[in-house]
Amino acid sequence: MQTYQRIVLAARPKGGVSPSDFRLETVSVPEVGDGQLLIRNHYLSLDPYMRMRMEDIKSYAAPQAIDEVMVGGTVGEVVASKHPKFAVGDRVVGMLGWSEMGLSDGTLLKKVDGSHVPLSAYLGVVGMPGMTAWYGLNHILKLKPGQTLAVSAASGAVGSVVGQLAKLQGCRVIGIAGGKAKCDLVINEFGFDACIDYKAGNLFKDVKAAAPDGIDGLFENVGGVVMDAVLHQMNPYGRIALCGMISGYDGQPMPVHNLHKVLSMRLMVQGFIITEHLDLWSQGLSELGQLVASQQLKYRETVSEGLASAPEAFIGLLRGKNIGKQLVKLV
Amino acid sequence: MQTYQRIVLAARPKGGVSPSDFRLETVSVPEVGDGQLLIRNHYLSLDPYMRMRMEDIKSYAAPQAIDEVMVGGTVGEVVASKHPKFAVGDRVVGMLGWSEMGLSDGTLLKKVDGSHVPLSAYLGVVGMPGMTAWYGLNHILKLKPGQTLAVSAASGAVGSVVGQLAKLQGCRVIGIAGGKAKCDLVINEFGFDACIDYKAGNLFKDVKAAAPDGIDGLFENVGGVVMDAVLHQMNPYGRIALCGMISGYDGQPMPVHNLHKVLSMRLMVQGFIITEHLDLWSQGLSELGQLVASQQLKYRETVSEGLASAPEAFIGLLRGKNIGKQLVKLV
Repeated sequence: MQTYQRIVLAARPKGGVSPSDFRLETVSVPEVGDGQLLIRNHYLSLDPYMRMRMEDIKSYAAPQAIDEVMVGGTVGEVVASKHPKFAVGDRVVGMLGWSEMGLSDGTLLKKVDGSHVPLSAYLGVVGMPGMTAWYGLNHILKLKPGQTLAVSAASGAVGSVVGQLAKLQGCRVIGIAGGKAKCDLVINEFGFDACIDYKAGNLFKDVKAAAPDGIDGLFENVGGVVMDAVLHQMNPYGRIALCGMISGYDGQPMPVHNLHKVLSMRLMVQGFIITEHLDLWSQGLSELGQLVASQQLKYRETVSEGLASAPEAFIGLLRGKNIGKQLVKLV
Repeated sequence: MQTYQRIVLAARPKGGVSPSDFRLETVSVPEVGDGQLLIRNHYLSLDPYMRMRMEDIKSYAAPQAIDEVMVGGTVGEVVASKHPKFAVGDRVVGMLGWSEMGLSDGTLLKKVDGSHVPLSAYLGVVGMPGMTAWYGLNHILKLKPGQTLAVSAASGAVGSVVGQLAKLQGCRVIGIAGGKAKCDLVINEFGFDACIDYKAGNLFKDVKAAAPDGIDGLFENVGGVVMDAVLHQMNPYGRIALCGMISGYDGQPMPVHNLHKVLSMRLMVQGFIITEHLDLWSQGLSELGQLVASQQLKYRETVSEGLASAPEAFIGLLRGKNIGKQLVKLV
C-alpha cells in the first residue's frame, strides 16, 4: 500500500453541515522515523462534539483547522513501528482522525486487548462515550436507589450506557429518543423503565406521565425543547449533567425556556468534558469492560462502510439517524 | 386604633401584574390572646420573589392564596403582648405581609436592635437581600482575589451588596443595570469597576469590553438576554449563582440562548433560595451588620409612602424603577 485516504475539513459549515464541507484526499504513506509507528485504522468514531469543533469559536478545544484531517477517535493495528513500546500487530486506540492510516509518536495512543470485547467497542461502550456516561452518572448526578433519572438521546452511544448503569444502581430510568424504533430498543434491549418519543408530539405530557414522582437527575445530551420538558418535571435539589446539546449544534439555535426551574427547584447544572478527567478512565473503563464481558451492559452500533461514507454518516448522526454508537468501518 | 388596612391578592395576574390584582381592605384590630402579640409594621419589604408566588405553579413555596394577605417581610414595633418573650416597644422583623398590623405567636419573629442600623435596613442590607448576596457569593461562587465577577440588577438590594462584598474580597466586579443613573451609582457609590447599561443597545459588546479577561463568576438576578451576554464571556470552570430571573417574571418568557456555554466552558450553575440556609443567617447578618456599621458596605432605598402605594411600587420594582431596596413606609 503506497497511498491511503483521509478526509480534511474543506470549509466551515454555513448553517447545517454539508458533504462539501469535507474533502477526500489520497496521500502517500509516510516513512516511519525513529520513535514513530504507523497505524492502519479499523474503525473511525463519529461523535457529536466534532460538529462544535468545525466552528471557529472559543470552546474547550481549538477549532478544527481547515485543510487538516478531521479530528476523531480511531482503533486500529500497528503496521510498522520504530517505537520501543509498540510492535507490529498491536491493537491501539488513538485520535488519528478521519483517516485510513496514521503516523504517531505514541502520544495519546493506548494498546487494547481485542480478545474480550470487539475492537469497535473501544470507541463506544468501553471508550470515550462509555466513560462520559460513567463519569456524568457517578461523579455529577450521584443518584440514590429509587430516584428517577431522565436521559435524552437515550438510544445513543452515551445515553444507552447512562440508563443501563443507573438501572444497575436501582434507579428508575426514563429515556427520551426520536421515533418508536429507538424507544422500543431503549425499553426492550437497554431495559429503561420508559422511553418517550419526542417526535410523537406530546413531549411535555409524556415526560410528566412517565415520571409521576418527578425527576431527580437529568443526563442531558440534547438541549432545547427536550431539556425544557424535563426541566419542567424536576424535583427540588435535582442535578443535571450537561453532556451535550446536539439539537443546537447544526443549524437553528435551540433556546431553553425553563431555566427558571433551576432557580425555583434549586437545581445544580454542571457542564463537563470527559477528556478532562483522565485520572478516572482506568477505573471507569475497567468497570465498563467487566459489565460488557458479563453481558450486564449492552450496546448497539451503526456502522457505515469505508472512509468516503464518513461525511454522510456524520450528517446522519447529527440528525439522529444512528442507533447506538456511530462508526465508520475502514478495513 | 380600632381598624387597620391590609392588601390581599384579589386575582392571579393575566400577563403583567395590574393594580386590580390587589385589594385594599380595612379590618378590625384583633384581640391579643395568650401567647400572642400584636405588631404595628413600620416598613414592608417588596421583593421580586412575590411575583412568582402570585402564580399558581409548583415552586419552592406554596402559591400566594387568593383573598389572603400578600406575603412579605416586615419590620415594626410590638404594640401589645401576651407573649413571654416579647414586650411592648420591642422592634421585630417578621413575615407579616402587606399589612399595617399583624398578630403573631412569635413564629419567624426576630427582635432587632434599631440603634446601630436603621430599622429599614433589616429588610435589606442586613436582612434577606443581604443574606442572599452573602450566601451566593461565599457559598456558591467562592471566587478568588483577582477573578472577575459579573452581577446583574447591580443597583438592586441584592446586586449592590454582592458587588461590594466581592470588591472587599479583591475581585474585579462588573455590574449590569438599566440606565445611566443606575450605572453611575453602581460605580461611584457602590465601587464596582464597571457597569454596563443593558438599555444602551450594545450589551454583548459592552460586557466583552468590560471583561477583557473573561468572567469567572456570575451572580444572576435577571435571566434572558442579560444572562446570555455574560454566558458568552464566561471563562472555563466559571460558576453561576442563579438567584433570580426577574426579566421573565412578569410577562413574556425570556429564553436563554447561550446555555451551550455551560457545556463548552464546563460551568456550574446553582439555583438557591436563601430561606433554606437559615443556619448561616446569624454569621452572615453579623458580618453584614459590622460592614454597614463601619460604612464599608453602602446601601440605597427606594421608599414608597403608605400601604395603598404598595401595588404600584411593586409593579415599579418588576420594571426596574427602584434603586436599591424597595420599601413601603407604613408609619
